[in-house]
Order: sequence, then C-alpha cells, then structure tokens
Amino acid sequence: MISIRRISLAAFAAICCAASPVVAQTHPGIFISRAEGAAIRASLGKYPVLDRVVRDAKLTMDSAFSHPMDVPQPGEAGGYAHERHKQNYREMQTAGILYVITGDVRYARFVRDMLDKYSILYPTLGPHPLAGNQAPGKLFHQSLNEANWLLATAIAYDCVYDWLPLSERKKFEKNVFRPMADWLSVNQAKEFDRIHNHGTWATASVGMIGYVMGDTSYVNRALYGTRRDKTGGFLRQLDLLFSPDGYYMEGPYYIRYALMPFYQFAEAIERRQPSLKIYDYRGQILRKALYSAVETSFPNGVFPAINDASRTMAINAPEVVLAVDLAYRRYGADERLLGAAAIQNDVVLNGAGLEVARDLAKSATPPKMTLGSVEFTNGPTGQGGGLGILRTGNGADATMLLMKYGVHGGGHGHFDQLHFVLFDGGREVVPDYGFARWINIEPKSGGRYLPENDTYAMQTIAHNTVVVDETTQNGGKDAAAENAPAMRNFFDASNPFVQAMSARANDQYKGVSMQRTMLLVRDARLAHPVVVDLYRVVSDAAHTYDFPVHFRGQLIATNVRYTAHASSQSPIGSGSGYQHIWNTASGAAPEPLRMTWLDGNRFYSFISAAAGGDEVIFGRTGANDSSFNLMSEPLMILRAKAKSRLFASVIEPHGFFSEPEERSLDATPVLQQVRVLADGAEGSVIEVSGANGIRWTVMVSNTAPSATGRHHVEAAGNSYDWTGNFAVEGVKQR
Amino acid sequence: MISIRRISLAAFAAICCAASPVVAQTHPGIFISRAEGAAIRASLGKYPVLDRVVRDAKLTMDSAFSHPMDVPQPGEAGGYAHERHKQNYREMQTAGILYVITGDVRYARFVRDMLDKYSILYPTLGPHPLAGNQAPGKLFHQSLNEANWLLATAIAYDCVYDWLPLSERKKFEKNVFRPMADWLSVNQAKEFDRIHNHGTWATASVGMIGYVMGDTSYVNRALYGTRRDKTGGFLRQLDLLFSPDGYYMEGPYYIRYALMPFYQFAEAIERRQPSLKIYDYRGQILRKALYSAVETSFPNGVFPAINDASRTMAINAPEVVLAVDLAYRRYGADERLLGAAAIQNDVVLNGAGLEVARDLAKSATPPKMTLGSVEFTNGPTGQGGGLGILRTGNGADATMLLMKYGVHGGGHGHFDQLHFVLFDGGREVVPDYGFARWINIEPKSGGRYLPENDTYAMQTIAHNTVVVDETTQNGGKDAAAENAPAMRNFFDASNPFVQAMSARANDQYKGVSMQRTMLLVRDARLAHPVVVDLYRVVSDAAHTYDFPVHFRGQLIATNVRYTAHASSQSPIGSGSGYQHIWNTASGAAPEPLRMTWLDGNRFYSFISAAAGGDEVIFGRTGANDSSFNLMSEPLMILRAKAKSRLFASVIEPHGFFSEPEERSLDATPVLQQVRVLADGAEGSVIEVSGANGIRWTVMVSNTAPSATGRHHVEAAGNSYDWTGNFAVEGVKQR
Repeated sequence: MISIRRISLAAFAAICCAASPVVAQTHPGIFISRAEGAAIRASLGKYPVLDRVVRDAKLTMDSAFSHPMDVPQPGEAGGYAHERHKQNYREMQTAGILYVITGDVRYARFVRDMLDKYSILYPTLGPHPLAGNQAPGKLFHQSLNEANWLLATAIAYDCVYDWLPLSERKKFEKNVFRPMADWLSVNQAKEFDRIHNHGTWATASVGMIGYVMGDTSYVNRALYGTRRDKTGGFLRQLDLLFSPDGYYMEGPYYIRYALMPFYQFAEAIERRQPSLKIYDYRGQILRKALYSAVETSFPNGVFPAINDASRTMAINAPEVVLAVDLAYRRYGADERLLGAAAIQNDVVLNGAGLEVARDLAKSATPPKMTLGSVEFTNGPTGQGGGLGILRTGNGADATMLLMKYGVHGGGHGHFDQLHFVLFDGGREVVPDYGFARWINIEPKSGGRYLPENDTYAMQTIAHNTVVVDETTQNGGKDAAAENAPAMRNFFDASNPFVQAMSARANDQYKGVSMQRTMLLVRDARLAHPVVVDLYRVVSDAAHTYDFPVHFRGQLIATNVRYTAHASSQSPIGSGSGYQHIWNTASGAAPEPLRMTWLDGNRFYSFISAAAGGDEVIFGRTGANDSSFNLMSEPLMILRAKAKSRLFASVIEPHGFFSEPEERSLDATPVLQQVRVLADGAEGSVIEVSGANGIRWTVMVSNTAPSATGRHHVEAAGNSYDWTGNFAVEGVKQR
Repeated sequence: MISIRRISLAAFAAICCAASPVVAQTHPGIFISRAEGAAIRASLGKYPVLDRVVRDAKLTMDSAFSHPMDVPQPGEAGGYAHERHKQNYREMQTAGILYVITGDVRYARFVRDMLDKYSILYPTLGPHPLAGNQAPGKLFHQSLNEANWLLATAIAYDCVYDWLPLSERKKFEKNVFRPMADWLSVNQAKEFDRIHNHGTWATASVGMIGYVMGDTSYVNRALYGTRRDKTGGFLRQLDLLFSPDGYYMEGPYYIRYALMPFYQFAEAIERRQPSLKIYDYRGQILRKALYSAVETSFPNGVFPAINDASRTMAINAPEVVLAVDLAYRRYGADERLLGAAAIQNDVVLNGAGLEVARDLAKSATPPKMTLGSVEFTNGPTGQGGGLGILRTGNGADATMLLMKYGVHGGGHGHFDQLHFVLFDGGREVVPDYGFARWINIEPKSGGRYLPENDTYAMQTIAHNTVVVDETTQNGGKDAAAENAPAMRNFFDASNPFVQAMSARANDQYKGVSMQRTMLLVRDARLAHPVVVDLYRVVSDAAHTYDFPVHFRGQLIATNVRYTAHASSQSPIGSGSGYQHIWNTASGAAPEPLRMTWLDGNRFYSFISAAAGGDEVIFGRTGANDSSFNLMSEPLMILRAKAKSRLFASVIEPHGFFSEPEERSLDATPVLQQVRVLADGAEGSVIEVSGANGIRWTVMVSNTAPSATGRHHVEAAGNSYDWTGNFAVEGVKQR
C-alpha cells in the first residue's frame, strides 16, 4: 500500500475540527430535490436517454405493484430472502425517486407500506446466524449488505419524508433506521472504522440516514469515525484508499463497486453541508478516483481484467453511471465524461443525470470517449511502479496498449509484472485471462473463485510476459511479490506517432533482470498503429525464457515449420499453469518468426526476431481442467534457452475480413522483418522493416532513465546515437 | 431436383408467344425514374435509414473522386485489376443513381469518364486467358463477373443516358455494351441458356442493357433464350430454379446471391414491359422465392448454415435488401418485410427503398420480424422430404427449431438427414457447423473450401443427428445420398403451445430405420419454450448409435461421473469426422443424463433418458487439424449399443447470467427427468417431468402419418390412447 501520511494530516487539520454547519432541513435533500424532480418531469419527451430511464423505472414499479409485497425472514446468502431484500431496497429507492418526479402517491405509498413491514420485522431480529467469519447484518448475513440496504432506503425515505405523517416517521426511525444505523456504527464499530470499501458503505449509509433524520450525531460519526477524531470515517477513507492520482490499488474492477458509496455520500454532504467542500477534498480526490477508473477502460468502456477481475465489467455499471453524472455536474461538463455517458447509455434520476441526458441529446452524433495516454503510478513518488496506457485513435476505434508494472495487488494480485494487453479494432486482441470464476453461477463452486484461479489465472504463463524456467514470478508467493513491485523506467507519450513506455522487473526471478519497452507507432504507410516490443532479459546463468502471446480467434498463417500434435495431445508442462495448456503444435523458430491470426474484422501479425535454437509452441488452454472451468483459448510461446536475450517483436493489425460480406483484404502483413542490430548495457537497437519502403530503427537506452542522456552504440560497423530514453528513426508521420 | 414440367408448360403457353409491348423509351427507366429521384431528394432529413444510405453513397463517391480513376488491364481473380473493375461498376452504379437524386453533374461526369476509359480498353480485349474451365469473360476471368459488371453499368448508363451527347452514347454502345452483350449471349450462348443462377446473371444483364439501348432483340433473347423459344432465358429460369413454394434447392445461403439478378431484371421488365406481369409470373414465384429465403432465417436475420454455407450470411446482404424493398412495393406492404428491413437497416435508392424507409420511420419502435412456423417441401408432391421450422415468440427473442429432412443438396450437400438446429435467446445455441472455409482469406487455401470441409463439416457427426457405427450417412457418397432423400412424416404447428414435426430417414444406413419427432412446447410453468425430441432407430442387428449435441459456450454442470482425459487427449475415432474430435472426457451415462451449459445470457439443459450400458463422450473439435482450419467447439455424444433405441430427450433454456452485472439466476433446470414409457411399432410414449408439478406425457405414432388414425399402446399396466400423429398431455397453457 501507499504512504500518504503527510497528505492526510494536512487534510485533517483543514477539515476535521472546522465548524461545518448542516444546511436547513428540507426533504428531499440528499440526492434529488423537488425542483430537480419537477425539472425532470418537464423534460420528458426531450432527451431520449432520460425518457428511457424513467420508462424503465416505471416498468420496474409496474412489475413490483403486480406482485404481493414480501418482507421475508432473513435467509442464506444468494437465497430467496436475501435476493428479495435486495430487490426491496432497489424498488423503494426507485419508488421514492419516481414519487419526487411524478408526484404520483402510489409510489410514496409503496415505500410506506414496505417500511411498515420492515418496522414489524426488524425489531425481532438478532445478528444473522450465517455470517461465518464476516461482520453480521440482521437482514443479511453480512453487514455490508445491510449498509447497501440502508443507503438505498435512506434515499427512498428522504423522498417520501414530507408525505409521511409524523407518527409513521417516528415508527420507522425507532424500529428500523436508528437500530440499523446503531448496529452498523456502534455494534459493528470496528467494521465501521475500517479503511476499506466495506467501511465506506457503512459510513455512507449511516451518514445519509443521519441527514434525512436530522441527527448530526450519525453524520459526524460517519464523517469522522466512531471516535470523532478521524481515525476512522469517510474523510479518512478518502485519504487512504486512493493513491495521490486517484488510482485504487486493487485495480479498476474494484474501484467500480466503491464508487457508489463514495459518490452517493459525497453528494449528500455537498447538499447538506456544502461548507465542507467535499468535492474539493484532498485536491478533488473524488474526481481523480472516477477519472482514474474511466481512464483505465478500453475504448469500448470495458475495464481491463487486471488481477482477479471479470473480463466484462464496464463503465456502464450503475456505480460508474452515478459517478460520471455527479462528476459531470460537480466538476464541470467534460466532453470525455459525456463520451463515457454515451457508452453507458444511462443516467441517474436527479439533476446531474438530467444535465447529462440533456447534453447527450444536444449532440447530433453520440459523443465519443476519446482518452489520451496516461500513466498511473503506485506510491506517492512512483517507486511502487505503475500502470502504463498508450492510446491512439478516436472513440471506440482507438488502439490501447496497456502494460502492468505496479504493486502486486494483495490476495487478488496476479504474478504478471511486465504483462501487456492490446485492444484494437473494438476488441481485446491480446487479452488478459482475468479471473477463473463463473461469478455467481451456483453450480460452478457456488459462483466463487475456482481452483483454476490459483493454478492457472494467477500464474505468469496466463499473461503476456516472459516466464523464466517454466516457473511463476516470485515463486507464486503473494508476500514475496508484494515486496517486489516492478519499477517504472520511462513513459513518454509526447509524440503521437511514437509513444513509448518502459519498466523493469529485477526482483521477480532470482538472478534475472528484465526490462520491457513497448512502443505504439503510427506510420502513414500502415493502416493501423503497430506495437513494437523490446523485452530484454539478462542473467549470468542459462535459463529457459518463454515469451507468450495469448490471442483469440483463429490462427491464419505462420512460417513456423511445426509438428502438429494432431492425433494425441499432452500439456506443455506440469506446474505453474503450464499443466493447463495443451501442446497443439511445436517446432523450431524460423528467423524471423511470423504468425497471423484473425480476430473480429481484422488480421494481426506477430513478427519477432528469433535465434538459432529457439522453439515455438502453439498451445490451447483446457488441459487438466477436469471440471470444464477454463475457457478454451489459444496462445503461442516463443521459447529461448540463453543467459540473456532481447525479445524484439512487433504486432501489426492489418486488413479486413467480413464473413457475411465475404470480403477479405490484406490478410498478409506489411511488416516482414524484425532484426536485433545491437543489444548491450548501453542500449538496444532493432530494425523493423517491410513493404512500402518501411525501415524503422528503434533505439532504447538500457541505463538509468534520463531524458537528456546521450547514448552511443556500435555494432557490425554501424554506430547508433540518440539522446534520451529512446529514439525511433524512419517513421513516416504523414 | 424437382420436376415442374407441367407448370412450366402452362407458363410457356401463357406468355412466350404473347405480344409484349415495350413501353415508350424514357430514361432513367429500369430501376429508378426522375420522379423517384426527386421524391428521394424531397424526403431527405425525414427518414433516418434513407438519410444514412444517401450519405454513405455520397461518401463512397467522395472517396472515389479523391483517387485517380483507373481502368486497368484485366488480371487474375482476386487480384488488383479484378477488384478494381468490381469497384468501378459499383461506383458507376452509385454515381448514376446519385445523379438522378441530386442532379449534381459531377456524378454524371464520373460515369461518362469511366465509360470513356472502358470504351478504349474493351475493344482491345479477347477472352480472358485465366478462365480455366469456366466460361471466360474479357474484363474478368469468368463471364459471371462480366455479367455483374454489365448489370450494374446498365443501371448507371440508364441514369446518365439523357445527359450524354448522342455521340458519346453511340461510342459506348459500339465499343462496350453491344460487344459485351454479344459476348455473353452469343459467344457464350451455352452459359446464357443455362438453367442456373450464372445464366440468370447473364440474361438479366443483357436484358437490362437491351432496355436501356432500346434494342428489343437483346431483351427477347434475355427473356426467351438464344433460340427465342423459351428453352433458355429468364422465364425458363423462373420455371425451373424454384420449387413450387419458392424454395431454392441449394438452401438459403445460395438463394441470397441469385435474388439480385432475379429481382433486378424483374423490376426492369415491370417498368418497361408491364404487360408481361412478371411479378405475377408462375403464381408470384418471385414473391415466394424471397419469402422462402426470409422465412428460413433465424430471428436475428442470419441464414441457417444448411449444407456448405457460411455461419453469418444474413438477410442484410445487399441482394436481400433489394428483394425486400422491391417485394414490399410490388406485392404489398407486409409488416414482416418491414421487420426484415429493420434488421437490414438498409434500403435501395429508388421508389421502393423510399417507401420502406418512410414506413420504417413511421414506426415508433422498430418493426419486429416475427415469422411463423413453416415447412418447405422438396419436390412438387413433397416426396423429396423437406425442411421444417417451428417458431414461437416475437422478434429477435423468438425461439426457432429447424429440422432438415429434404434432398441432399448436390455437391454442396451435407450428410445430415434428421439434423436439427436450435436458435434461442438471440443465439444459435445448438449450431450447425456450416462449411469449413475461411471464405476469401487468401492464406487459408486461397479462401476456398478446406480439406476439412470434406473430412469434417460434411460428415454426419458434425451435425446434431444420430450416427450409426461411427460412419457417415450413405457412406459419405453424394450420388447415394441424392437418391435417398429423407421423408416427411408430419408437420403440425396448429397449436402454439405444442408444435411438432416429424420425419423419417430409412435409406441413410442399410438396415436401420430412423424416425425423428421434434416438438416445441410452451408450458406456463416454464420461462422458455422447451424442445422435446423422440429419435427412434430400429434395426434387426446390433449397432453403435451416437447421438451428438453440439453446443457453444461453457459446460456448467453434468451428472455424468466421467473420467476427464485431462493430461492426455486423443481423437474419439479414426474416420467419418471422428478423427477431428478430441475426447475430452467420457463415462457411463446416468439415468437420466443431464448436462447444463451456458451460452450468452442463458443456461441450457439437455436431459435424456439413458439405458444401462450407454456411454457419454465429451468432445471438442480440433484433432487432426494440422493447419488450424477448424473452429474449436464442444459437443457431447450419447452412445448406445443396441439393435433399436428411442433417444428421448429435452432441451430446456433457463435462467439468466450477466457477467458484467454479476447476476446469475436459475442455473439449474426445472425439468429433471425424461422416461420412456412405451416404444413399439404402434407408437412411442415418453414422460417429461420436473419441478412446479410438471409432468407431460408425449405420445407419437410410429405408423404411417394420419391426422385421424387412433392409437392404443399398453405398457407396464398403463394404456395410452390418442388420435392423430401425436398428442401431448399435461402442458399448462396459461
């Protein structure tokens, strides 16, 4: 984790002890106001997204009205009662908001009737008996779900507050809201003060119900922790859970869930205690948190599956919709956020959502989410490595190259330093496998992580990075990996035609130093940007170096003269994930090695320098997968046995294929050759060449990064000179 | 092929010798008129589809204007010159039509300038030297492409005819159009008179240029053949190339291409010789031809990959767009065609396309293409078997069950009698493999059929039908299969809750009779329609019967206690396609056998009665695939060794899964059991049962089909009585 002590102390001084008056109590006042409800009502028929969201909300309630209301006795996780209570709070929130928008008392009545049922049930409940080793709720097995319930219901209650008779409000507060808020913040004080997103859910829900009930004691507990000294509480969480640039250490898949309580509570604070200036807190850390999430996403809005993560979680998740709308309103109308909203095709129902829907409707064509290249560093001075993203192109057609060289990522971390992912042509073409989990599918180990998550998905060979001696980085040990983050080398996106990022990993394999430099090159003679990759491994002892490229789609052509293991197949190894890969074919590597595959409407060619003795293995996942848990996907491994080695390669997207149109163009690449011209302690020089007169010389420094250092390398009678971390000659920019 | 002698003679008498005056010559007059062009111009900004199509056409021409015009010397198929000439005729057609719509002379000039270049090149050309064994063109290696060129260019010429000075017209006709029309209809008379879609391209193109030039000799040759006696020509092609219900014998993938010349020439005839009433010809055979194509399509518009066919060819192909628009105008505004047009999201640029675009814009929500159940018989009396399609549900959410029991299909035929395909939840969930071909991808055997088309895709095991003794139907011999069509048994879609189709195949395996009855059942206690399948094989000798179910997506659960071939894999057999399937796992079949897989957002469970000694094999395609030509897809095989056997099974779609939403519901099926209660010469009776009190009794007659025959079967002390071909008891309809 990062150290941010200085920052949090400063923040503490600025805010904790300041008087922060709560504005006069009006209802609704934490998420949507009467005026916003009226504005939405007046806008219906004008903004297509808003119309659809309101219509969907009404349909949800029509369906709810048509079924008997049920507030069952608590049950087990994932069972009927559990799901019913979840649906109940969602429906109450929807009903409350629709009441504010439409004024239709059926919606208010729905909230009241359901709260009535809860006010009978809740006082009868003790701690849930099936909590296991988690903090228990009462309605739910874990207090996290209880906080989810309270957060949504606080909004619902706020919406119907003025409509309810005082006697009803008293009953609900006495029987449900105060006991629940006390349960979360007093009985479960430890969980409440925890610096973790579960703690954020607890503080947000207690703070929000505090605002609605007009009880500042709950609010202050939520803001400053149970001891009111900011050793816990929402502000402390804002201090500690993000790196200074807003990056959430567990990765984009995890920030998604946390955005909901952070933004929901922040919005309530802004409305009820504007003097706190919560959106400006810690240098606008909430803005940075959202942007860091959005800025890691692929051009189609899907989050890269860094570490244990789903391959499909995307910015259209409701938590991100909330954060995008609120950030758009609170931090200024940013075209990139509007582009994100266009992908989301969804808004929240308050004034912020209305603004987004309105501005989306203003655009003749849907706004594009065009993001730039960006690096997220881990740790306040960047010593924890980072995550580099190079981008070129516009909107969904953009190309994105991501390299991971940050901290390990705790128990969810994968052993994948210097791993890369390539997104092009609307698809993740060199993919991350993500987690081995069929999430929430009961017959697949209860929807939890599968054994293959440990034995395959976390292992180094499941990624696009070099594996030494068929073993996983840091021996596959979390603790060792946590202590050995990769190191940033340089990141330079200043020239849109030649962008580069470089990192080192010297502590993943004993006695082996690794430096990877990846470039994204646009040459006017090529239809698409090209990935250039210089992966340098150095050791005093001989090792087996496996350089894998995972892909999807169909292998189209290769110049490898392989032996197909066509009538009998066995795994390529016996451990470290190798046991899960069938050996489909193998052969000696030609010089240069070429492989073309088809993915979607485009061809991709991997072309690599190879040396005598190099071997190529074509594999497919699925071996030793007795429960059919793995996805069946192909990969290629370039295997070298050497002390040191520079893996020099390119990936060229090319051509077009449409099966329905029966059109195929340019199935062979323009680039033909990658040669290593020089490789030593001073620098590496490679040449990439092909048709159309293309001949690039790519020079990368292997010494400590310096933008001004001069480098001189001689090889085969030629000399190469450049200044700075890298240089590329021969790229035609127009 | 079918016999339709009687029909064609009648048609001949009615039309061939009748006087059929050509209407007064106005230009443009074969595809679009000046009035239609003006109407389109006046409609811009009103109908989104039309706007987009016009915008795209203009962009195409902007791009064409920005490059030097090139009319190169002829070259090889697929090479630059070949592709350039193809693009040239497309651009001329686009330019001509845009000239009529916009009046912008840049477009007319483009057509003139290009025709100028062709009028220099064409007179210098002889027969193309690379024709091989095909009829040669001059610009192209085969005359088919020459006809494509002439058809498109006839439209372009028609559009700019009045704008061109007489001298230019004379030049083009003398140097290009007449020589080309003569080449196609005189030099290549045999090809011209051929009853084949290549002949249709030739007649259509010659007839259309004849209309534009005002030369009825070409028109009459096109209509009635080179001998003007209707032994060849367009009308004869209309007589012979379709079954009486319009079904095109090679299947939907093939009719798609043929629709273009049929409809394009018909439209020209209708405009220039309306007295011919071409759209009414042979009982509106053109209408039937289009509908039979559209009606075989899946709810998403994709054509089933019957025989050698692409898995993705769909009704949005430009040929089908043309036919849908023209049929919509000429045969009346049919809501189903409008639904097809909504899927196409495309129109042609003439009055017909304008009508479709206008009516699409009228609909608040996009019209749905909701098709009913339908059977296409092969041969005039249905003795050639047929193709049965059961459907339920609306629009893209409909479920479609298709069974193939028709003629073999010539050299493109697959050995797949009684094969079925299931489409549900927007996907082809029990798929047809289609052809083994990466169409037009040069490195994959030049984009032609791959060896695996013969060794796998055509074989019986590649389909969802029983394989006897691990050998392919009819020994994999086309001639034998052509002489042994399957037989219709019955088809009854009268009850929307219980629809059934049944067929027999007694000549596919010597000494083995097969009858398959498939039902699509909707029960109010189930979320989705269920497939019920009774596949009865009868023999005097013991055989191995393999019952395969191909699927996509991920295997989720099975009750088979299998041995996973997890660390070494070999093919499940050595020939008949078996050599291409890896044996992933195998085990004894439990009673009943259950397997659940996930495909898209839905789970599917196959539940089958099994008998002692039955075996289950889980396989995956890709063995003996040394060139990576096959797609890697899973299947399950239920293997029985017996003399006779009733395979009784169901497929239940259930639940919901969304990985991005992390929601999973009902991953286990409602149905639990399938039991065979009785099976004999009189009939088969099975019971399907599950949760929610479901208990269906399904009775099927095994005697000759009769809607009124009474059946009585006794078994285990129970008696079962029903009238007609089948009966189902216990289905809750509401």
